[in-house]
Amino acid sequence: MDERSRIRRSTFVSSFVISLLRKSVLRLSVTTLFLLILMYAFFNVFFHPIYDSSKLLSDFPFNSDGGITAVSGVALNQLSGGNLAGNFTVKVKVYLYDLPTRFTYGIIQQRSMMRGDRPVENVSMLQYPGHQHMAEWYLFFDLIRPESERVGSPIVRVLDPEEAELFYVPFFSSLSLMVNPVRPAGSSETERPMYTDVENQEALVEWLEEQEYWRRNNGRDHVIIASDPNALYRVIDRLKNSVLLVADFGRLRHDQGSIVKDVVIPYSHRIRVYEGDVGLAYRKTLLFFMGARFRKEGGKIRDQLFKILENKDGVVIKHGTQSTENRRAATRGMHTSKFCLHPAGDTPSACRLFDAVVSLCVPVIVSDSIELPFEDIIDYRKIAIFVDSAAALKRKHLVSMLKAVTPDRILEYQKEMKEVRKYFQYGEVDGTVNEIWRQVIKKLPLIKLMINRDKRLVRQELDCSCICTNKTAITTLKL
Amino acid sequence: MDERSRIRRSTFVSSFVISLLRKSVLRLSVTTLFLLILMYAFFNVFFHPIYDSSKLLSDFPFNSDGGITAVSGVALNQLSGGNLAGNFTVKVKVYLYDLPTRFTYGIIQQRSMMRGDRPVENVSMLQYPGHQHMAEWYLFFDLIRPESERVGSPIVRVLDPEEAELFYVPFFSSLSLMVNPVRPAGSSETERPMYTDVENQEALVEWLEEQEYWRRNNGRDHVIIASDPNALYRVIDRLKNSVLLVADFGRLRHDQGSIVKDVVIPYSHRIRVYEGDVGLAYRKTLLFFMGARFRKEGGKIRDQLFKILENKDGVVIKHGTQSTENRRAATRGMHTSKFCLHPAGDTPSACRLFDAVVSLCVPVIVSDSIELPFEDIIDYRKIAIFVDSAAALKRKHLVSMLKAVTPDRILEYQKEMKEVRKYFQYGEVDGTVNEIWRQVIKKLPLIKLMINRDKRLVRQELDCSCICTNKTAITTLKL
Repeated sequence: MDERSRIRRSTFVSSFVISLLRKSVLRLSVTTLFLLILMYAFFNVFFHPIYDSSKLLSDFPFNSDGGITAVSGVALNQLSGGNLAGNFTVKVKVYLYDLPTRFTYGIIQQRSMMRGDRPVENVSMLQYPGHQHMAEWYLFFDLIRPESERVGSPIVRVLDPEEAELFYVPFFSSLSLMVNPVRPAGSSETERPMYTDVENQEALVEWLEEQEYWRRNNGRDHVIIASDPNALYRVIDRLKNSVLLVADFGRLRHDQGSIVKDVVIPYSHRIRVYEGDVGLAYRKTLLFFMGARFRKEGGKIRDQLFKILENKDGVVIKHGTQSTENRRAATRGMHTSKFCLHPAGDTPSACRLFDAVVSLCVPVIVSDSIELPFEDIIDYRKIAIFVDSAAALKRKHLVSMLKAVTPDRILEYQKEMKEVRKYFQYGEVDGTVNEIWRQVIKKLPLIKLMINRDKRLVRQELDCSCICTNKTAITTLKL
Repeated sequence: MDERSRIRRSTFVSSFVISLLRKSVLRLSVTTLFLLILMYAFFNVFFHPIYDSSKLLSDFPFNSDGGITAVSGVALNQLSGGNLAGNFTVKVKVYLYDLPTRFTYGIIQQRSMMRGDRPVENVSMLQYPGHQHMAEWYLFFDLIRPESERVGSPIVRVLDPEEAELFYVPFFSSLSLMVNPVRPAGSSETERPMYTDVENQEALVEWLEEQEYWRRNNGRDHVIIASDPNALYRVIDRLKNSVLLVADFGRLRHDQGSIVKDVVIPYSHRIRVYEGDVGLAYRKTLLFFMGARFRKEGGKIRDQLFKILENKDGVVIKHGTQSTENRRAATRGMHTSKFCLHPAGDTPSACRLFDAVVSLCVPVIVSDSIELPFEDIIDYRKIAIFVDSAAALKRKHLVSMLKAVTPDRILEYQKEMKEVRKYFQYGEVDGTVNEIWRQVIKKLPLIKLMINRDKRLVRQELDCSCICTNKTAITTLKL
């Protein structure tokens, strides 16, 4: 081999090696890239679960014996308008009490027997009946189903109460009230229900007060649902330390319930969700209302509103009780109206508001003391019109006010309702149930503080800590 | 070249190439590994800052105009006993008001001039004087220093108020009170301070009420420090919507301040930190107290305690005012005692508690209405003994009770104090200042809720939402 050919050969070898190296570099770069993507995915999947819709969740260190020892992660993730923010979660541990059947399925059983059905062997096959306070079913069902189906939830169910940060008491308190009215005087033994609602309430509290984890913190870390404003009415004083899930505070004193301690939850809507897009083409009615005309207390305004609005041009206002037929009529009405009236009922809240939102019918709220679910993340002025009772009762005021709302403004309301209505859909994946838990979790720092504080207080007087509106001249509070 | 030599050559080339490839594989593997480590570090540093000590921080979506549009991350990270839990944060954005100098450095300037010093050109060179309410300095200093020095902080300073979730008003309200007493009657014009404290307070509110971001939410998203219980006393009604950083609620009505809306902050300790280990060998005194004997209101108990405890075996109780000499004596006393008395002062809180904790001297708290900082993460029963005033005044009760505490129990108290004392050290990296911000951030959901709610309320009455102790028979609250 001469010098030139050696050089050529050597050059060839070199270029071959370089070419191989380049390929390998390329291959390894691809490998590197692949690994990086894998790693990114790993981080995202295992450390930052990315949820598919808006959520907001958090967690606070919380420890049963009150030490600074709690190790608890947090996540808060709020997605809106398609932007995905940082998301990461260590879920909050919730213990579901295994209540005696009489407090859960037993009530469904009792209801079906009272309707003439034969008792079933396996009560857990019974279907919970549909009604506006069925939040209690959705929350229970969410906790009994497998972890994998609890999509986007900020909580995890634990089977050992020692691990739990919160305790859920799944008493069907609203169904109990509906199924078991106060025992009618003179009714025969055969007709009487197994348990009256009051018996259920008292038995529940007795049962709870025997539980170690209830006694530990006087129930402060317990979550109890009382969606119907009258649910648990007889025993609420003994449950008032807990986080109550309520429709409003119409039946509660200030030391029993408040937006500070408790969580306002939506009614389960009874009107079909409007699946169409935003728009006014099919909404010819200006203002729609269908519901009970006569109500007690704050609800007396209903009859007055009927008198003012009946037979007004563009207004449909009808008396109607809950029935499948009426629900169908109300669905038609709400899906074809621009505005839907929400007057106070016996208490300030009512199902109507949530029916209106899922119907994309702008709620007109005439209920001065209403409290609203999830108000830290929902600005209701963007989806509803608030009218104080005095103004609403002025002749022609309401109708002329609503007529003056521009079509563009109505479309804005509708768009915003479309954005937030998942918060009012209990059956949705990552819907109302998850949001209720996120709201409960936000109470954890205050729960923890109160647990520690209660135990070291030396004074025995009633002592309340408050947050107040700023709408007023200052007066001295007597607490 | 014959066949064998060609084969040999070819084999040589092959093995050369393979060897090169191996090296390159090795090199690239190292590169890959390096990249992975880099990437891991990147994630950790930028997305999951790992803190070196206990912390707990969180964040909630919060948006200035009240929509559900806020995108805000959260982190909560609680480390205790050496365990590191999940940690991840998108920091909460805080806007620091650029207040007129008279509200910040101007007060330091005024103080030094009143002491006879000449005014300086560059006031930001002035040193803030040491005293028990210097939290206001630490919080201000934390926000003006570079981001990189705010280690472990749950907040980030933003320069555009539009981005901010919280607004900090850095008025040196306690120093103003100290430096500018109410103008003494008959004092000559030359002696009078530039501004009295009352003038400062009123000027501050007037200035604030002109600010767009103050007016937007009536100050709800603003954070104001009033560490001295008398600070801001003249204008508190106009600032009461804000998150107040206070030592206690001794001078505030229930609608002005509470553990629900506000954050209780520690006094800045005035005693040197005890650097030794836990132990009783050098702690021969049973109970120590040095401080003012005569106080108003709840503090009247001090004189009574002096009478009972003076000249008791093992007890050192001395009258003393703040001075360098007395602080040195108090340091010696607290570092060599098992228990340190914390009686109420003019208001329930006092510096003594925090001096005791950094001294590892078990606080004996005789102050029935005391509120404590960070009580959601600190169980004070683990670091202090609470004695109600009536019991403390029983003859011999206190001393015999303390004598009965076993050495092991005292060591437990000391160990726990060592764990938590960083929360009471303002100067520490990731100490008190960060914890104060974490506490403020926990108020965000309620702040947001109140902002939305205030704006849609139709009623004008005073309306308070509360959480109450469970220590009592139920009485009806009048709010």
